[in-house]
Amino acid sequence: MRGTPRAAPGGYAALVQPSDDPRTRRAPAAVTLRDVADRAGVSLATASRVLNGSDRVVRPDLAARVGQAAAELRYVSNGPAQALARARTNVVGLVVHEVDDPYFASIAAGAMRVATEHGLLTMLASTFRDPGREVEYVQRFQAQRVRAVLLAGSGRLAGAAELDRALGEFGDGGGRVALVSERGLPFDTVLPANARGAAQVARLLHDLGHRDVGVVTGPADLRTVADRLGGFLDAWASLGRDRDAVAVAEGDFSRAGGHAATLTLFERHPHLTAVFALNDLMAVGALSALQSDLGRRVPEDVSVVGFDDLWLAADLQPALTTVRLPLEQMGARAMELVLTEAGDAPRRVPVGAELILRASTGPARAA
Amino acid sequence: MRGTPRAAPGGYAALVQPSDDPRTRRAPAAVTLRDVADRAGVSLATASRVLNGSDRVVRPDLAARVGQAAAELRYVSNGPAQALARARTNVVGLVVHEVDDPYFASIAAGAMRVATEHGLLTMLASTFRDPGREVEYVQRFQAQRVRAVLLAGSGRLAGAAELDRALGEFGDGGGRVALVSERGLPFDTVLPANARGAAQVARLLHDLGHRDVGVVTGPADLRTVADRLGGFLDAWASLGRDRDAVAVAEGDFSRAGGHAATLTLFERHPHLTAVFALNDLMAVGALSALQSDLGRRVPEDVSVVGFDDLWLAADLQPALTTVRLPLEQMGARAMELVLTEAGDAPRRVPVGAELILRASTGPARAA
Repeated sequence: MRGTPRAAPGGYAALVQPSDDPRTRRAPAAVTLRDVADRAGVSLATASRVLNGSDRVVRPDLAARVGQAAAELRYVSNGPAQALARARTNVVGLVVHEVDDPYFASIAAGAMRVATEHGLLTMLASTFRDPGREVEYVQRFQAQRVRAVLLAGSGRLAGAAELDRALGEFGDGGGRVALVSERGLPFDTVLPANARGAAQVARLLHDLGHRDVGVVTGPADLRTVADRLGGFLDAWASLGRDRDAVAVAEGDFSRAGGHAATLTLFERHPHLTAVFALNDLMAVGALSALQSDLGRRVPEDVSVVGFDDLWLAADLQPALTTVRLPLEQMGARAMELVLTEAGDAPRRVPVGAELILRASTGPARAA
Repeated sequence: MRGTPRAAPGGYAALVQPSDDPRTRRAPAAVTLRDVADRAGVSLATASRVLNGSDRVVRPDLAARVGQAAAELRYVSNGPAQALARARTNVVGLVVHEVDDPYFASIAAGAMRVATEHGLLTMLASTFRDPGREVEYVQRFQAQRVRAVLLAGSGRLAGAAELDRALGEFGDGGGRVALVSERGLPFDTVLPANARGAAQVARLLHDLGHRDVGVVTGPADLRTVADRLGGFLDAWASLGRDRDAVAVAEGDFSRAGGHAATLTLFERHPHLTAVFALNDLMAVGALSALQSDLGRRVPEDVSVVGFDDLWLAADLQPALTTVRLPLEQMGARAMELVLTEAGDAPRRVPVGAELILRASTGPARAA
């Protein structure tokens, strides 16, 4: 609970206390939980369970005696602020889409490092892209009275009324919320430059002479997908090219999904000279599909570009050209947002995207 | 709470209930929490908070009325067994060493899939290899009344008295514990074949004619390191070779650590023809150090072998020969252990290791 004012034991103190005790004659003094326990003839632990709430069951007759004693001693709450401070644990909850996706693992690592520096523990939950489970975890974290919740996954384009409500309730109760990626929600948000990063890819491929280009997209209902695909197509159009001529196949942001989508793409459009996968994991699948399944050389026959710059991008065969997002820093910034004073309005923290040129891209082969 | 007997609401039921209600004359019927709430003139939620425990604060006068009503109605606990069942949440805690290490991410994904199939949520905690934080997380999970705790990281060779105690207390309180990797603790354990897998590597390299072999080890105090290194050296000796002639440099199980340790190894022993990294992450670093920093070809100049068969092993440059552990299955088995009836004695579930030959190994070059 470092950095947070601690409540009096139990978050209660007397406002006014008439008493015969000589110690308390000069001024009203706090009735302690010990006083209530003594009067009720129960242990301090039992009194605490009854008055402060507890997960342990208390015998009804004892609960009655404690309640009676507290009423007689006018043992009353010291106010919601202290109760709130008392109620927060030293835990921060972090919700991601896929725990075994290095994108989220890196964001989580950055967030956890900052939490650790502040003496906080982090609990990570993975929704496996199930929106219902996202809501369930937020509510579970709320029930555990975590200090803050971070949501690291992309939001959906369609409404997420339940999630909005769950986060809102958590926030109303004094919990802090921060998001990584745009969700259109009124909370502090770290905003990666998805559209601008994708635009850089369009310009790179165009400069290299590629005209027959395919995109391996992620789930169409994700904002991140819309931002990256839109950024690429807008830039492609601004270069004087036909955005509708760009071939598109949908993956699911996984390696296997990128592999399958790349096979689909080349079955329909065998003459593509470049593939832009909207994340690195799918680019790994694209490299495998092209080189192992389709017998294409990368980059001599087909150039491949990813997005994210996962730590393993440079170790791939060939090393992957991609758009770097500062993933650990994004997680760290989100954690910092919930550990500092909230602003009057939700804060928006943009983070840049940088094109990293490696061996998987080259000039378009002659048609 | 699927698969678990549910307690009556609140874990309470009347044992005997004298009543004037004609419905209950024939036999004692359960007094419900609703009955208590009605008699006390409070909401069901308030009655539940007082009698079942809650994190929310209840006004003392209301607590007194509820306690009184419960006493008058003889609303009593239905016994510790039900209270225990009620007291467990639908959450399982999972503790790993490094959240951004794909080894743990895969184990976590397998465990989480099984949990999800059983309607349970999983909260993951990463210790960043800090033993103190491991204890802290176990205690935090206990305070949250999670149903079970899984520890997925290797144990240490030296005593871990605090952790033993924390797990023991959690187990004594009815929580379930399962471990992935040997810890020498009396809990259900999933046991990867670390020593036998490493022995296969020794035989492979020997068969390929390698005699000048180096090992990039992990932290020396980890059981997994001792098992893998010992398995390799024992097999090497059984092949008639001098185990003391095997060059060793210590990494920290990370890519960067493997990179640095490989540079150290070849500075001291430039004539090595093969490197065995005790996990794949360090093998990735070894590949990078050899090819990018030292200008060695893999496998023509130096063969490289890893351990774990992370999902990315086949995508590396060159594709990595390694020992496959069924990581997702290991996580799944551990989760299954805590979801089934406990045995009389701790169960030990061995899982196999399989040598996977890829492009990073070849015959030793002539001296």
